[in-house]
Amino acid sequence: MQKLKLTIAYDGTRYAGWQVQQARRRKAGGGRQTTEGRKQQPTIQGTLERVLRRIVQEPVRVVGSGRTDAGVHALAQVAHVTTHARIPCGRLLRSLNQLLPPDLAVTHLEEADTTFHARFSATGKRYRYRLFTGAVVPPFIRPYVHQVRVALDLALMRREAARLLGRHDFRAFARAGGRPTATTRTLSAADLKRRGQEVWVELSGNGFLHTMVRSIVGTLIDVGRGHRPPGTIRRLLTTRQRRLAGPTAPARGLALVEVRYD
Amino acid sequence: MQKLKLTIAYDGTRYAGWQVQQARRRKAGGGRQTTEGRKQQPTIQGTLERVLRRIVQEPVRVVGSGRTDAGVHALAQVAHVTTHARIPCGRLLRSLNQLLPPDLAVTHLEEADTTFHARFSATGKRYRYRLFTGAVVPPFIRPYVHQVRVALDLALMRREAARLLGRHDFRAFARAGGRPTATTRTLSAADLKRRGQEVWVELSGNGFLHTMVRSIVGTLIDVGRGHRPPGTIRRLLTTRQRRLAGPTAPARGLALVEVRYD
Repeated sequence: MQKLKLTIAYDGTRYAGWQVQQARRRKAGGGRQTTEGRKQQPTIQGTLERVLRRIVQEPVRVVGSGRTDAGVHALAQVAHVTTHARIPCGRLLRSLNQLLPPDLAVTHLEEADTTFHARFSATGKRYRYRLFTGAVVPPFIRPYVHQVRVALDLALMRREAARLLGRHDFRAFARAGGRPTATTRTLSAADLKRRGQEVWVELSGNGFLHTMVRSIVGTLIDVGRGHRPPGTIRRLLTTRQRRLAGPTAPARGLALVEVRYD
Repeated sequence: MQKLKLTIAYDGTRYAGWQVQQARRRKAGGGRQTTEGRKQQPTIQGTLERVLRRIVQEPVRVVGSGRTDAGVHALAQVAHVTTHARIPCGRLLRSLNQLLPPDLAVTHLEEADTTFHARFSATGKRYRYRLFTGAVVPPFIRPYVHQVRVALDLALMRREAARLLGRHDFRAFARAGGRPTATTRTLSAADLKRRGQEVWVELSGNGFLHTMVRSIVGTLIDVGRGHRPPGTIRRLLTTRQRRLAGPTAPARGLALVEVRYD
């Protein structure tokens, strides 16, 4: 048995997110047709498992550090697999990238300790949300940014973002209607960086709830454009009222940038 | 009458190049079906003309600074149009970008002198060719780079590229079988720049022959990997023998970066 750690980059545009739907997995070994025969979007996990299975000639389960939603990108998602095949990492990496579609690549591959677990061993993550503030989005970055056509008060947004730091109950930023679960997380960074015509919102923390980053970004935009008052973030962390939060910013602007392990 | 100068950015991946095919233009007013009924790839010029016509409600001819080939990109192609419609530039720019497909954008629009001509007024152009030298191409830049999987001797390539500077007959780098035409051009820059895992070949000059940049890049790669001896560029400029040149590098790595006017 061999445990492998994969670092993965993807353009999430045409994917239904990271995770294979359990209903689909149960149905026909990950088949991509619904009962109605309608073609479904592929998932990152499903695509990796299909290609790996072809190489190692046995069923493989790819365990990610966590899910990314439909349309969300990753510069360095991390996953692990366990396999009986003993293929040298360099050769396996080349085979994988030859068979994977062009919008999905394994950037690093290494043998991991048997105790390594992509999800449970992770100690932190960093996400980047790219806002485009210019008049015309260059075609080359269009799938990766969210255009904001109104003036944003960056200083105000920075002060607001600083309120996110530390340990809080982020329930107000979690997807409404989700199963009740632990919603306390610790953020270690919440930065707004000017990058030419872009503003990058970068959040680091020990974990993130479903749609939490996009919900925070949507709220920050609303404050920055004057649709919500300063102090909104603090109020959301205190009241935990989802309805006081801004809209969820679109998936295309978001990328998982880093997964940290000790 | 109003003359407008457009600056245009495009991801050339799905286009058949800049220019509307004359046969097609004659046939059915720019219709996109051949006589066989096969769907053809759109062109940049044709797409711009179609969208402009819809806005200004009259036929419009878009005159570019020059053609780009199928699959070649542009950060700042320049074109001019003449129209009777007197629409304020700001409004026209917004309308254009609302109607254009996401891989094609007009980044600047301004009124030009009546004597301005996108092609004849141009005094120089700059092209960039992006070579990717790492093991795995990140999905986000895959449409814009050409991966070279062998070691390249950059110092050698730089010395070779320096030979291109000045006024030369570049016939050896023009597409074979083209119509005989003036093939002397003057290059003012021929730089190789390291950019992380990429090498950018940047060429500036008063004009470029068809496939000249890609043919130069293909030759430089061959020298850099040891397939052709140092001095190859000098020999090509002297002998003007196309068969001594390297292969034409793929279109995807090439972008028109700048068109200069006095």
